[in-house]
Amino acid sequence: MLLMEHESKELLEKHGIKTARCIFVQDENEAIKAAKSIGFPVVMKVASREILHKSDVGGVILNVNNESEAKKAFNKLMSIEDVEGVNVQPMLKKGIEIIIGVTHDEQFGSVLMFGLGGIFVEVLKDVSFRLIPLTKQDAEEMIKETKGYRLLEGCRECKGDVNALIELILKVSDVVENESILEMDLNPVFVYEKGYVVADARIVVGNKKSFKEKIGDISFFFNPKSVAIIGASRDPRSPGHTIVENLLSYKGKIYPINPKAEEILGLKCYPSLGDVDSIDVAIIAVPSKNVVEIVNECAEKNVKGIIVISGGFAEGWEYGSELEREIVEIAKSKGIRIIGPNTMGVLNPENGFTSFFSPITRMNLKTKLGNIGVLSQSGAFANFLLFSLHHIGFSKIISIGNKCDVDEVESLNYLLNDKKTEVIAVYLEGFTNGRAFYELMKKSNKPIVVLKSGRTKAGKKSALTHTASISTSDDVFKAACKQAKVVKVRDYDELVDVVKALSLLPLPKGDRIAVIQPSGAECVMSADAVEENGLRLAEYSDKTLERLVELSPEWHTISNPLDLYPIIEKSGDKAFFEILEIVANDDNVDAIVTGAFISLLLKQDFRWLKKIEKPILFTFKDDLEMFRQAKMKVENLGFPVYSTPERAIRALKHMLIFV
Amino acid sequence: MLLMEHESKELLEKHGIKTARCIFVQDENEAIKAAKSIGFPVVMKVASREILHKSDVGGVILNVNNESEAKKAFNKLMSIEDVEGVNVQPMLKKGIEIIIGVTHDEQFGSVLMFGLGGIFVEVLKDVSFRLIPLTKQDAEEMIKETKGYRLLEGCRECKGDVNALIELILKVSDVVENESILEMDLNPVFVYEKGYVVADARIVVGNKKSFKEKIGDISFFFNPKSVAIIGASRDPRSPGHTIVENLLSYKGKIYPINPKAEEILGLKCYPSLGDVDSIDVAIIAVPSKNVVEIVNECAEKNVKGIIVISGGFAEGWEYGSELEREIVEIAKSKGIRIIGPNTMGVLNPENGFTSFFSPITRMNLKTKLGNIGVLSQSGAFANFLLFSLHHIGFSKIISIGNKCDVDEVESLNYLLNDKKTEVIAVYLEGFTNGRAFYELMKKSNKPIVVLKSGRTKAGKKSALTHTASISTSDDVFKAACKQAKVVKVRDYDELVDVVKALSLLPLPKGDRIAVIQPSGAECVMSADAVEENGLRLAEYSDKTLERLVELSPEWHTISNPLDLYPIIEKSGDKAFFEILEIVANDDNVDAIVTGAFISLLLKQDFRWLKKIEKPILFTFKDDLEMFRQAKMKVENLGFPVYSTPERAIRALKHMLIFV
Repeated sequence: MLLMEHESKELLEKHGIKTARCIFVQDENEAIKAAKSIGFPVVMKVASREILHKSDVGGVILNVNNESEAKKAFNKLMSIEDVEGVNVQPMLKKGIEIIIGVTHDEQFGSVLMFGLGGIFVEVLKDVSFRLIPLTKQDAEEMIKETKGYRLLEGCRECKGDVNALIELILKVSDVVENESILEMDLNPVFVYEKGYVVADARIVVGNKKSFKEKIGDISFFFNPKSVAIIGASRDPRSPGHTIVENLLSYKGKIYPINPKAEEILGLKCYPSLGDVDSIDVAIIAVPSKNVVEIVNECAEKNVKGIIVISGGFAEGWEYGSELEREIVEIAKSKGIRIIGPNTMGVLNPENGFTSFFSPITRMNLKTKLGNIGVLSQSGAFANFLLFSLHHIGFSKIISIGNKCDVDEVESLNYLLNDKKTEVIAVYLEGFTNGRAFYELMKKSNKPIVVLKSGRTKAGKKSALTHTASISTSDDVFKAACKQAKVVKVRDYDELVDVVKALSLLPLPKGDRIAVIQPSGAECVMSADAVEENGLRLAEYSDKTLERLVELSPEWHTISNPLDLYPIIEKSGDKAFFEILEIVANDDNVDAIVTGAFISLLLKQDFRWLKKIEKPILFTFKDDLEMFRQAKMKVENLGFPVYSTPERAIRALKHMLIFV
Repeated sequence: MLLMEHESKELLEKHGIKTARCIFVQDENEAIKAAKSIGFPVVMKVASREILHKSDVGGVILNVNNESEAKKAFNKLMSIEDVEGVNVQPMLKKGIEIIIGVTHDEQFGSVLMFGLGGIFVEVLKDVSFRLIPLTKQDAEEMIKETKGYRLLEGCRECKGDVNALIELILKVSDVVENESILEMDLNPVFVYEKGYVVADARIVVGNKKSFKEKIGDISFFFNPKSVAIIGASRDPRSPGHTIVENLLSYKGKIYPINPKAEEILGLKCYPSLGDVDSIDVAIIAVPSKNVVEIVNECAEKNVKGIIVISGGFAEGWEYGSELEREIVEIAKSKGIRIIGPNTMGVLNPENGFTSFFSPITRMNLKTKLGNIGVLSQSGAFANFLLFSLHHIGFSKIISIGNKCDVDEVESLNYLLNDKKTEVIAVYLEGFTNGRAFYELMKKSNKPIVVLKSGRTKAGKKSALTHTASISTSDDVFKAACKQAKVVKVRDYDELVDVVKALSLLPLPKGDRIAVIQPSGAECVMSADAVEENGLRLAEYSDKTLERLVELSPEWHTISNPLDLYPIIEKSGDKAFFEILEIVANDDNVDAIVTGAFISLLLKQDFRWLKKIEKPILFTFKDDLEMFRQAKMKVENLGFPVYSTPERAIRALKHMLIFV
């Protein structure tokens, strides 16, 4: 329900927010009395729940100077359609115009918007968002990230009281937390050199959506004592075959279910679920139309969890949505959990358990046990990460597809509690419970890196037909990531770049970067990238400089970025590791981005470098087979490799979020 | 010399630019007379060549309403320090404030700046640039690319006459072309719903720098009859050895010069230049201190051109700059041309001639003869391109290092005239003659892709110590690229991505993109990328839709992007090429970005696809060896491969510049 202006302002005043209080009147004499009590000149405004834009209907009269003008104004305003009364308020001194708004996002709940008025909001859409409640730091950052902030800071002979604004934002956050408020528009707020006043206010009250969620334990999906594969097949091209193949090294009991086969890949086959002993997890890889029946059989067998690999559910057609609802109903009634449908499911490199149907065994892809936990809505995306980072190592991978039951919140919660997981990579197309996901991200003490697709209108349309998810506004999610101190990346490469660095390296202590490169071109490009990413080039200590000068030909200028080539020409390539050690041990240096000569990397052992507790990121092209060998060697020794200094420097920028 | 306001305005009026003409007066009576002839109210302003900001010294008095006020104002203004007189002008109706400025850039000559006044220029730095002279299209685009354009378009109850503004910009361009004008500030110009008026104007006159350059023919560097390598060495780690090694297959006469060696790699060595017959090109790879002596010897031998590989010149120390000046002087006096120093020089895959000192022969790197011409300031950068694109093929590569003689203009001119070159990739850190380079880019009918580093302050510092070049403002160069219809990229990966597409593919006829991907995730990410790059998703024709529905399982929703997986599951992987053909032949489709199943790509021959005259860009990860094999196969068949759809779509966006 929309409150009237005077009601809105009363509510705000009750919480200590300074408004240009207005007196609501419904007859001429009251209006004159009100104007007199405020003192001429006054502003008179139409009051109505139906009128959203008062100016557009001629509903705001400024500079009402005396009784007769007040009378005239009152009568004019009362003749406007839908009028309920008139508000009388003092004329305000003009300040910098600010807008503070609150909306109730379908996925993230109460969101606060801040922006400067006029051109900034109307022409430039120069606004920032934060989820409510905000901290003082959130409020400060959201003000500073608008372009209009420069105006508040002081320029063009005006200046705004930023501290008072921060206080106002925090109070608005409080009001929304404590009252049943869905929407709010404080527009405009005048900000002065000292203080502010809310000139106009609209508040919509109502019941807020609850984002409470019972977060179940899904850990049993990663180490079942027994697993059945329904749809196990002898055809190597079929998912039901590949899953069995990928499970061959798993130590639990494996029951391929296929009424027509005696055995598959040396494992005895069973005609139906009824023919096997107890089953912890069932993997279903049969056409969607047959899945309801299978889920019923699972229910009879008291299966704990089901992973539905098959597509053809809500991502495709309306009947698929019905099928999904049906299997969820059956499962819920029996306390069975479901991952999927339309997914790869899980992969646990520690024990070899997996429901992945990509031919990882056939490709001889050895997945190292490591510290990267993956939560991916898309199975294919999880699979890409497996290709790119199998040698860096994963703790657990979970892909949740249409998330008819197990959702992103439970999955993230699982990874947060998983001891082997130290870094979390997330790919999502839409949220089931954005607010609960945000709360978890915020609580996390493990670094999280998120790629959220379906950002654009076109993107969203495609998301609807893929995993049947509805994207939320990218602005709000961007704000959520900032508040939760989570890295939000734009594409696959960026995700891999950051996750790799976080997995292998210690965090830098600061933003002073040393760049060492074998060519001048890479030095110049690196310097651009350091500045464009908001980092600083470290200034070497005297001790470092002295030694670098000794190693260099007399004509070479030592600087940061450091051009290696002339040094190697004079002192030989063995000088490289010495330089790296000197620079890394320089107290003025927080992180190192270094190129290297590939032949040198291939022939030297440099695992001792790991003792230096600063991040060292290597950069060289991996276009040729020899280069790729060098990359694998360097990454296996624990240092991430990037194809360009720009990518390494971008990864470093993101690492600093966690410092 | 700074013109006074009334002189500036006279000059502008002479060229048909509408100004708020002012009358310059130096005594009280003249002032009153002027005010009367204009008609009260008037504006009176201090006139002085010394005062840049009149308002700051109280030098602007508005609303002068009568004779006595005019008298008072005159006397007040005349008391200001440095005053030379007073300007009387009419009060102007307020319009949208615009700024038009002209500067004379050290590298690009006359540059015009456009922006909205007030917040837009002061707070947001929301301005655009173009090189003078401008076309009508340039003027229109530079207005539209500012954020403030929305205000001119009409919003917040104001609107500006964009056509009049375009005319004004073109007139300013003309004035600057035809008069000796170095700088100009039209600030503010008031733009109304109809017309405009220049309220204030400052013009600096003076002689413009000339950018005329005698462009020499450097083609002889690419196919010398005879070549001497001074500094040829038996040590495989030395550049002088590797150059000889890389030249072994070259059919010209090769003279390694080394007083201590009998032979190198089977070639007879000569103690000095004096001991060999005539030489076309000398490659010098000895320490910088010895180069002057060698250049003198070259001069005696009437060598045509010298490539100085060695570093230790102007990029390093002051003495190196002296050395550079000395060798240039010797060469100039004898008509010898020099490439370098501090460079790789040239590579011509057609005849195998090269001065590159990277171990390309030892690495068994076969460089295909193709259509990509490379102009790189950095030798290392040229070498990177060789690694990344050797299988796509180059026409010529030239790297010019410190460019003490042969510069970027002559090199670009050479590539523009070279018949084998169809696409040009440029890497530059600074300009020797930016304007001449721009003129060539503008004339080019071959697509040019430029990476310019040294964009930031930090970047520039490093450029100074590398190839001794001074970077020009990135804003101006960005404008030059827009005007010349040249792709300006931000990093190495983007350069390679675009050049590869331009080298292999026909240009798209429009921006309607079809995306085909083997996973829903890639579909969603592609849809985001298409929109974020300003392209459109094509709408399939009915015929295409019909066939796609036939091939799909009943539950699958057919859309663009198209999720391949369900189709392949139903119809087998042979359906992929059929789908590709149907979609590519759809008249609603201008270009295709497609993923594929790698095993399919490896086993099928699809060179017939080349017959389809639309760009087809493949996307798949190349993380694993098998994937890389697929990449090489696909690229050797003439279709570029990208690691993500995002990169392919970005490359497509850039291709559209040339359409």
